[in-house]
Amino acid sequence: MTQLLWQKSGIKTDPSIMRFLAGNDIVLDRVLFSYDIKATKAHTRALGIAGLLNQTQVDRLVGELGKLEMLWENEEFVLDERFEDGHSAIESFLTDQLGELGGRVHLGRSRNDQVLVATRLYMIDSIDILSAHVHACSNAALTRAKQHEFDPMPGYTHLQRAVPSTVGLWMSSFAESFTDSLELLKHTRQWIDACPLGTAAGYGINLPLARNEVAQMLGFSRVMINPMAAQASRGKHELQVLSAMWQVMQDIRRLAWDLSLFSSAEFGFVHMPSDTITGSSIMPNKKNPDLAELLRASSAVVAGAISELQQIISLPSGYHRDLQLTKAPLIRAIQVTLDASALVADVILRTEFDLQRMSAAIDSAMLATDRAVDLTSQGVSFRQAYQTVADEIANTNEDVESTSAMESIHARVSIGGCANLCLDEIQCRLDQLTNQTTRCDCI
Amino acid sequence: MTQLLWQKSGIKTDPSIMRFLAGNDIVLDRVLFSYDIKATKAHTRALGIAGLLNQTQVDRLVGELGKLEMLWENEEFVLDERFEDGHSAIESFLTDQLGELGGRVHLGRSRNDQVLVATRLYMIDSIDILSAHVHACSNAALTRAKQHEFDPMPGYTHLQRAVPSTVGLWMSSFAESFTDSLELLKHTRQWIDACPLGTAAGYGINLPLARNEVAQMLGFSRVMINPMAAQASRGKHELQVLSAMWQVMQDIRRLAWDLSLFSSAEFGFVHMPSDTITGSSIMPNKKNPDLAELLRASSAVVAGAISELQQIISLPSGYHRDLQLTKAPLIRAIQVTLDASALVADVILRTEFDLQRMSAAIDSAMLATDRAVDLTSQGVSFRQAYQTVADEIANTNEDVESTSAMESIHARVSIGGCANLCLDEIQCRLDQLTNQTTRCDCI
Amino acid sequence: MTQLLWQKSGIKTDPSIMRFLAGNDIVLDRVLFSYDIKATKAHTRALGIAGLLNQTQVDRLVGELGKLEMLWENEEFVLDERFEDGHSAIESFLTDQLGELGGRVHLGRSRNDQVLVATRLYMIDSIDILSAHVHACSNAALTRAKQHEFDPMPGYTHLQRAVPSTVGLWMSSFAESFTDSLELLKHTRQWIDACPLGTAAGYGINLPLARNEVAQMLGFSRVMINPMAAQASRGKHELQVLSAMWQVMQDIRRLAWDLSLFSSAEFGFVHMPSDTITGSSIMPNKKNPDLAELLRASSAVVAGAISELQQIISLPSGYHRDLQLTKAPLIRAIQVTLDASALVADVILRTEFDLQRMSAAIDSAMLATDRAVDLTSQGVSFRQAYQTVADEIANTNEDVESTSAMESIHARVSIGGCANLCLDEIQCRLDQLTNQTTRCDCI
Amino acid sequence: MTQLLWQKSGIKTDPSIMRFLAGNDIVLDRVLFSYDIKATKAHTRALGIAGLLNQTQVDRLVGELGKLEMLWENEEFVLDERFEDGHSAIESFLTDQLGELGGRVHLGRSRNDQVLVATRLYMIDSIDILSAHVHACSNAALTRAKQHEFDPMPGYTHLQRAVPSTVGLWMSSFAESFTDSLELLKHTRQWIDACPLGTAAGYGINLPLARNEVAQMLGFSRVMINPMAAQASRGKHELQVLSAMWQVMQDIRRLAWDLSLFSSAEFGFVHMPSDTITGSSIMPNKKNPDLAELLRASSAVVAGAISELQQIISLPSGYHRDLQLTKAPLIRAIQVTLDASALVADVILRTEFDLQRMSAAIDSAMLATDRAVDLTSQGVSFRQAYQTVADEIANTNEDVESTSAMESIHARVSIGGCANLCLDEIQCRLDQLTNQTTRCDCI
Repeated sequence: MTQLLWQKSGIKTDPSIMRFLAGNDIVLDRVLFSYDIKATKAHTRALGIAGLLNQTQVDRLVGELGKLEMLWENEEFVLDERFEDGHSAIESFLTDQLGELGGRVHLGRSRNDQVLVATRLYMIDSIDILSAHVHACSNAALTRAKQHEFDPMPGYTHLQRAVPSTVGLWMSSFAESFTDSLELLKHTRQWIDACPLGTAAGYGINLPLARNEVAQMLGFSRVMINPMAAQASRGKHELQVLSAMWQVMQDIRRLAWDLSLFSSAEFGFVHMPSDTITGSSIMPNKKNPDLAELLRASSAVVAGAISELQQIISLPSGYHRDLQLTKAPLIRAIQVTLDASALVADVILRTEFDLQRMSAAIDSAMLATDRAVDLTSQGVSFRQAYQTVADEIANTNEDVESTSAMESIHARVSIGGCANLCLDEIQCRLDQLTNQTTRCDCI
Repeated sequence: MTQLLWQKSGIKTDPSIMRFLAGNDIVLDRVLFSYDIKATKAHTRALGIAGLLNQTQVDRLVGELGKLEMLWENEEFVLDERFEDGHSAIESFLTDQLGELGGRVHLGRSRNDQVLVATRLYMIDSIDILSAHVHACSNAALTRAKQHEFDPMPGYTHLQRAVPSTVGLWMSSFAESFTDSLELLKHTRQWIDACPLGTAAGYGINLPLARNEVAQMLGFSRVMINPMAAQASRGKHELQVLSAMWQVMQDIRRLAWDLSLFSSAEFGFVHMPSDTITGSSIMPNKKNPDLAELLRASSAVVAGAISELQQIISLPSGYHRDLQLTKAPLIRAIQVTLDASALVADVILRTEFDLQRMSAAIDSAMLATDRAVDLTSQGVSFRQAYQTVADEIANTNEDVESTSAMESIHARVSIGGCANLCLDEIQCRLDQLTNQTTRCDCI
Repeated sequence: MTQLLWQKSGIKTDPSIMRFLAGNDIVLDRVLFSYDIKATKAHTRALGIAGLLNQTQVDRLVGELGKLEMLWENEEFVLDERFEDGHSAIESFLTDQLGELGGRVHLGRSRNDQVLVATRLYMIDSIDILSAHVHACSNAALTRAKQHEFDPMPGYTHLQRAVPSTVGLWMSSFAESFTDSLELLKHTRQWIDACPLGTAAGYGINLPLARNEVAQMLGFSRVMINPMAAQASRGKHELQVLSAMWQVMQDIRRLAWDLSLFSSAEFGFVHMPSDTITGSSIMPNKKNPDLAELLRASSAVVAGAISELQQIISLPSGYHRDLQLTKAPLIRAIQVTLDASALVADVILRTEFDLQRMSAAIDSAMLATDRAVDLTSQGVSFRQAYQTVADEIANTNEDVESTSAMESIHARVSIGGCANLCLDEIQCRLDQLTNQTTRCDCI
Repeated sequence: MTQLLWQKSGIKTDPSIMRFLAGNDIVLDRVLFSYDIKATKAHTRALGIAGLLNQTQVDRLVGELGKLEMLWENEEFVLDERFEDGHSAIESFLTDQLGELGGRVHLGRSRNDQVLVATRLYMIDSIDILSAHVHACSNAALTRAKQHEFDPMPGYTHLQRAVPSTVGLWMSSFAESFTDSLELLKHTRQWIDACPLGTAAGYGINLPLARNEVAQMLGFSRVMINPMAAQASRGKHELQVLSAMWQVMQDIRRLAWDLSLFSSAEFGFVHMPSDTITGSSIMPNKKNPDLAELLRASSAVVAGAISELQQIISLPSGYHRDLQLTKAPLIRAIQVTLDASALVADVILRTEFDLQRMSAAIDSAMLATDRAVDLTSQGVSFRQAYQTVADEIANTNEDVESTSAMESIHARVSIGGCANLCLDEIQCRLDQLTNQTTRCDCI
């Protein structure tokens, strides 16, 4: 390993302890490395602004950081166990290239605010990528809702057939759920949009750092002011990011549950795309909706990470090494969320609906609610109408068929009902979340 | 128990099963009851708008609901095992008072959207109450920060003395943390501010309900459009509310950890108010910071509730009785959050600081970082300066005292540093969160 | 409230703080109260053995404790906010009855070891009650397995029809799962079977307490030796108890999922007893398997409690008030586990199976695996046989019906297969867990 | 990638979907691979016993499996993305070596029971490794307890100085806690000691497999009988294993908290070994107990994994692809537990105690409890004695010094008290857990 940044003369280290301390930090830092370089550039420029480096020094350092960035992108620089962490790798690279000047880059910062800023940039980028996925999911659901706006399917409660519904209602429910989650992602992005760089190890530094300028260079809207609060935001911010991402995974979990259930022979409502289906090593007849199942289970990774993070940060004020362990659950949960969400829009668009089986699954008893509501228009209280219809169902063998499924569907005219899905309004709200200029007057 | 809303002729019920199904739902419904009545009023008026009730009917129903509200407030109406749930209690009261007309109030709604809307109103109210508490906490921390802006205390990392800091920095870190949490509460309130009433059992209803008007009457900014999405928001909304509240509890946990630690004889930095301290049943000498400890532990209640909720809602689309179990963790977590947060501002204001012991705990080695930074102004790279100072500390018995604690503190001039706490800026941001008109130009 | 056990002269208390500190502790203590009295009796007798009370004193104290026990059982003694906690209530009762002598009962113990021992006795009792429930569940599943040993039903993987199976296999899977869980409960009971009383506040006491005798009187097999370890077991023991109970709830969750799914119109395999089914407040046609759904969701309560407990006990050695908050999740989780498990055996016994629909759901493609295995007896490798059968299914419209479902079932002769369910062996293992003398030679 | 075991003619796959389905399964399978080979050997031999392979075939297959085992141990066989999973890799290797014969090894089993048995063997091995670590930890704590049996240190409750205690009491508390955890590991090992191989995909197979013989070859004490119960044990067994391991991590967390706290300048009770301490990248003066902090935080990894696993397995009966995601949290949690626990015995043995500072931290008020207990020997009730001593402390400036710390320590003669630590008894119990023949008559 290269020289440890904190190594003092004459202290021996033990390899097995060093390995435990390092954990898989260097692997995790690969995810953060480009953000770390980017923030190091900004920090270097800020040292110039503060007169702590002259322009030539800034240029040379920023130049080398640019080279490192390119090497990294081209996979010509490897982040591995030679380095204690990504931060050390940057400093080591600069010192190799620029000698003593390379060591100046750490002036006025600590690895504490360095990892804070890199992590924050990573979270913001991840939210942006996820937002694009979620936008696509919502759009895909709207597309299917429009295609099948009035195609009937049963509406279930308690997994029991309840009332007639439509594929349009089912699909647009995902459009709205995803739109809600997108809005939360947006709020969350805004909430964490504050620059922690310049807070050093949690108590500031005896230098006049250009904190506002650094924040601006890195695209933040504001600085985190208080250095201890900045430290304390570690884990807190991660948790809200994961909570927002969990909401997306919960939308996906609901969809995946539906697809899993509706793929069964007994329901037979959907056929997932053949490339999302796998077979069995022992049963030649099997076509398994594995993708749906793994999408469903993936939310557990995020939930587990939330629990892990909550437990790590039960600590007094100030940095503690415990915080190193916040990286793994964060990165694990973000990656599974990005990977899973990337596939969903396509699944929504390509899953085939067996409209005939859906329609055939609507039996006449499902019109009982409509009939009870209808009876009230003849002056009966709802409670009496309910009892009348319940008795009718129980006491006759005949179907209570006061109206067909299609009539029932077209009678649901309130906002959001089968006959009034307000798809344009959902589309508007979705578009507004990505583009502020759209105006929406649907409702 | 009164007649079950869904009871059909000739079906027997088993008492032990009924008890399990009911759980402690009726007790939990006490928390939601006033919101349920309020939403029932709005629903009644909306039935009038839709022409499903005439004005006299609306007036009589709303009048009786007003009476029920008053009886409830005055504790003259008791919600207990006589009723299956709060919803049944309302309908039962109205039928007792108005006969058959009372039964009309359930027209066009289900207990599914009824509990959704009551829970949402409860969550919004709770966020508002909590926001006031958090605002007070932040203000209290700012007050203490101003009082002790330059009073020195050690800054710790890894529970080790690190660099000189101030009581002002410590206290204002809570001001900023609480302000961050307040902002998240505000975002969260805005996110859930959508009316689910009118979505019935998740598939709409064959009636032209006045959904926008209901939303307006209840103070919501918009409706949830899709009935299945409204159902699916159950649990999802609860989870984001608890995640936001957890952030407050995490701020409190950090404060409580500090108070617990700093109350020890070994630190001796703080004396908590005597009425927050209890004794031991066996040790006459003990003065225990029990309040700090219970505040610290309370965050676990919220975390446990989050985990519980996440697990309950692993379900396909549509209502399932599982969702009944979302109430208990929600209410439990909100209540502990409100109870705990209500006490914190006062604890912040009344805890005594032992400034002398704090100051005395700053030893000269804590100035090493300053000295290393100073050396860089003489042209040494930071890495070299670091090594030089480390060697000085290791090799001499003398203290490395290049500057006093006070000088160190006053040299921290960057935004947020000890000499530049930006308390006005934090105050501004805090005030803006509660009052949009304030403008802030501090930084 | 009665005099606080730790109240010192001249210190004022604040009601809102006192309320927060007390929480709902007194309500929770109702669950522990009888165990606290029982342990207090044993402690009193031990003080006698140690010569710290004379025989008359012991007799009078034990006599009054017996009275209190009876009053409590007959609901003539009320544990409410008059008392800080159950411990104070006991001491207060004794002092009221016996004057100064009542105050002697607390000699040599602290509320710390008092609550430890009461909680432990409560956990042991709860495990015993639960074990009886689980035994009944396993027996019920065996009964149904015997009734329907060879009745065919589809075996599913991925919710897809996979291979022919039997009701016997399905039901006996619960018998074995419950038996496994029962064994874990037994291990867990044995693990916590150690008496903490006599460890005072975590550091022992300057008295020669008769700890072994106390343990014996209370039915423990051994003492917890080290007082700090006894303190540290708080939360640890609770967590293992809940982990073991969670296993039972997971068995129930699997059963409940099956019942929920199989109750759907699409599967139609089971009809749950009519008294476990409820209706809808709006849809007269609904028959909802609410009990199955609440049983399914109940495991989340235990899981949430586990997470809550894990977070509370992130603490240095020694008692902290945080530990008070371990009571609520423990009691909540145990009660839901006992309530839920009490109903399950009956549900298993009374649920009706629609054998015709089950049998009809076995389609010919489900015999493909058998056919592939059969082909191997003709010298083909399994991988080739698999491919041959897969091609047959894909390329012909005809059914691949090499054998009937019944033949398939009877060909599964390995241990545990449909034709060799080993119900006697499961029964033996189950009986052995409750009665050591049975010998089992089934396999 | 090699041919997929379930690939059928004419179905295309999508690379990004295949990647998501595969996840990092192949990397995780490296942990399970040697167990998978071992179980494949046993399965091959069992096919021989059942007459499904002749002796030559068995010998050739077992021979090649032995070669694969050696290649794997010598890192000459690489498990990477060429294979869908470890199971496919084994079959692919055998087919490469033995042609068509290699394909016969999968006869009568599924990847479902294959992964079950490999995971179970891995868990059993991990428990054995961990048990050795825990045994060493307990022994180390006993060693330190013996060294410092009567060295005084303060006993804390609520982080407040409470009563005099000893280093012996403190250290032996870890000995007993670790011994408890070791016992739980032993119970847990016994609980999962059942062979699932031979249950195929959860419904058995139409072959007469030699299940008992396979179990014996693999060192299991019994078979899991029911194939669906075997499937259902996936996740259940993992959870109990992690719950037991969590207990060890909780012991370590308590120790780590103590070390972190006692390493602070304010306490100054311990000096951790210099090779467990790291520095700061910015503060030359820092010596941070990083190892203690990472040990403390590591329990959160196990807790997060528990939550993750609980959520994954909320499913109906039968295999679902969701179960694939049980591997990652299991392996992650086991590895961190093994890594962390491996270091602890050494930390216990090499941490230096500052006996002088410990002793100096015992102040005279800590003797108040002893004094109150003493007063009772003069006929005063404990409650009165308590009040008398409390008043003395409050009203006088003088110390209440009825006895010295050493006298107090020697007066604690009950089992487990400072003067009667019963170290031999703890040692006996510890030894009995690893060696049944030892008899123990200490208490």
